[in-house]
Amino acid sequence: MTGERRGALPVRQIRAGDRRALGRAISAIENGAPEADALLKALYRETGRVRIVGFTGPLGVGKSSLINALVAHLRGQGRRVAVIAVDPSSPFSGGSVLGDRIRFDRPADDDGVFFRSMASRGAAGGVAAATREAARILEVAGFDDILVETVGSGQVDTAIRDIATTSVVVLVPHLGDEVQTLKAGLFEIADVFCVNKADLPGADAARRDLVELAALGTERGGWRSPVVLTSTVEPSGIPALWEAVEAHEAYLERSGRRPEAERRRLAKEIVGRVRDHVDAELTERLERDPELRRLLDQVVAREVDPRTAAERLHRTRRARG
Amino acid sequence: MTGERRGALPVRQIRAGDRRALGRAISAIENGAPEADALLKALYRETGRVRIVGFTGPLGVGKSSLINALVAHLRGQGRRVAVIAVDPSSPFSGGSVLGDRIRFDRPADDDGVFFRSMASRGAAGGVAAATREAARILEVAGFDDILVETVGSGQVDTAIRDIATTSVVVLVPHLGDEVQTLKAGLFEIADVFCVNKADLPGADAARRDLVELAALGTERGGWRSPVVLTSTVEPSGIPALWEAVEAHEAYLERSGRRPEAERRRLAKEIVGRVRDHVDAELTERLERDPELRRLLDQVVAREVDPRTAAERLHRTRRARG
Repeated sequence: MTGERRGALPVRQIRAGDRRALGRAISAIENGAPEADALLKALYRETGRVRIVGFTGPLGVGKSSLINALVAHLRGQGRRVAVIAVDPSSPFSGGSVLGDRIRFDRPADDDGVFFRSMASRGAAGGVAAATREAARILEVAGFDDILVETVGSGQVDTAIRDIATTSVVVLVPHLGDEVQTLKAGLFEIADVFCVNKADLPGADAARRDLVELAALGTERGGWRSPVVLTSTVEPSGIPALWEAVEAHEAYLERSGRRPEAERRRLAKEIVGRVRDHVDAELTERLERDPELRRLLDQVVAREVDPRTAAERLHRTRRARG
Repeated sequence: MTGERRGALPVRQIRAGDRRALGRAISAIENGAPEADALLKALYRETGRVRIVGFTGPLGVGKSSLINALVAHLRGQGRRVAVIAVDPSSPFSGGSVLGDRIRFDRPADDDGVFFRSMASRGAAGGVAAATREAARILEVAGFDDILVETVGSGQVDTAIRDIATTSVVVLVPHLGDEVQTLKAGLFEIADVFCVNKADLPGADAARRDLVELAALGTERGGWRSPVVLTSTVEPSGIPALWEAVEAHEAYLERSGRRPEAERRRLAKEIVGRVRDHVDAELTERLERDPELRRLLDQVVAREVDPRTAAERLHRTRRARG
């Protein structure tokens, strides 16, 4: 894929960071358009070095403001930053849920910043894969850091682990019951804890709670997730938050854990894609293939149960040749 | 499966509505335990007649209180009611998220009510399937109505469509931006709209908005989703809500749409199960099968891209004999 045929996505313009070309390429990924396929296959070998920093947390913790502040901080250091807002758990097929909800307060002419929201069009596994692919495009376009924000789900979203190299769990003081029940889950996800809105009372208590929680996490191969207090009202803690992210990235290098983590993410991505292929193929065949229609008829008629039908389909797919 | 061997699930006690037996059977479904398999296969032919009423909506609309009020109403009519609370979009593997969060204020000795929360243990498709299977067990145990509440996701959850025969979308007055952006999605899901907390100001305006929205939905084969105002403070509208549910169920019969809807749900359930089989098989093989390990090595080394790897795996699976 070197030419710039009609319909094909212009690699040269993507490398040059052309915003329209980037937008088109990411839309093509989102829509499962065939031109994304050729592009991603061609560019894959050049990717994998960028850091992808994920932010997850309950609704109302101020993730978007925090990310705006981080972007300003990184721009101040001369780094080029791309932000992808993604709703991994949304089952809606359209783009309207994210739509224009997230606004971005950087000057429009700053070409060192790129913002994009991505909507789920299909399976949950598919969103993580699409986000990783968009990040690859942005890496080739020369962005230094990719920030991924989960939005809309209103909960801490484990899918971020399948996307990001460093996952930041954002909370606020007075964590409340929700976090109590989430503790086991947080422990699986957070490479860095951020207590945002630290200007509110209770920030220190929240920090103590999380430090305690993080201490349980030292069995995670020697990384103890730091807890950083931030505020975006009178901005504070933003450089410390980024230092914590960089410390985790340095740890991944030093410990040799980066390839292992990337291998796990790639395995997930591949399995997710095969699942999607299987889903598309079977859904189609259950409608059109006479043999499968008959099987579904039998399930509807209560002659065959769904588990047995699924086992048969799984076996048949494996045995077909 | 007729005996009551050790480890096997006691069909006779399930038919008798024994709560401990029901609890064990549903846990077995949730955990993917093999004894659930035999049980569900044996009982499937007896199922499919119960109505399954799903409730979804944003956080804070008072779904749990509403369901409590509905249960009281149905018990007053002498109906046996089971409630399943499920978090379709939760990616957490444990049960702690739901845990004891939902309390149920019926006398403990009322054996005409059964309450159970189910947690997602695996893929999103898997939760819907597990909920439907639990509903089958409860149907065999003689419950007249199964109410399914989506919890935790903080959004309107389309997965309810793959579970319920009638889906109720619960909102509150002052629907706000969220609903504006969700309109397209709501229209796909709601068989009945419920404006809860109708004692708050703005209820009539919300009703008007939704009636307008529902009018767009008449192309859905002649069913115009009714809008019901309810309150659980001084209970009102609860009988009307249930009448709306029954009207939709009657419409499904009258229009002949029930088998078609059930067929769609069963197809989804079967495809979801095959996806899970594929996921389990591939995840295992990517770790253990030397050939697949090599393929993943190549992806990690950037020699093969993930899309190509997934296509190869998909083809290989199909061609293996």
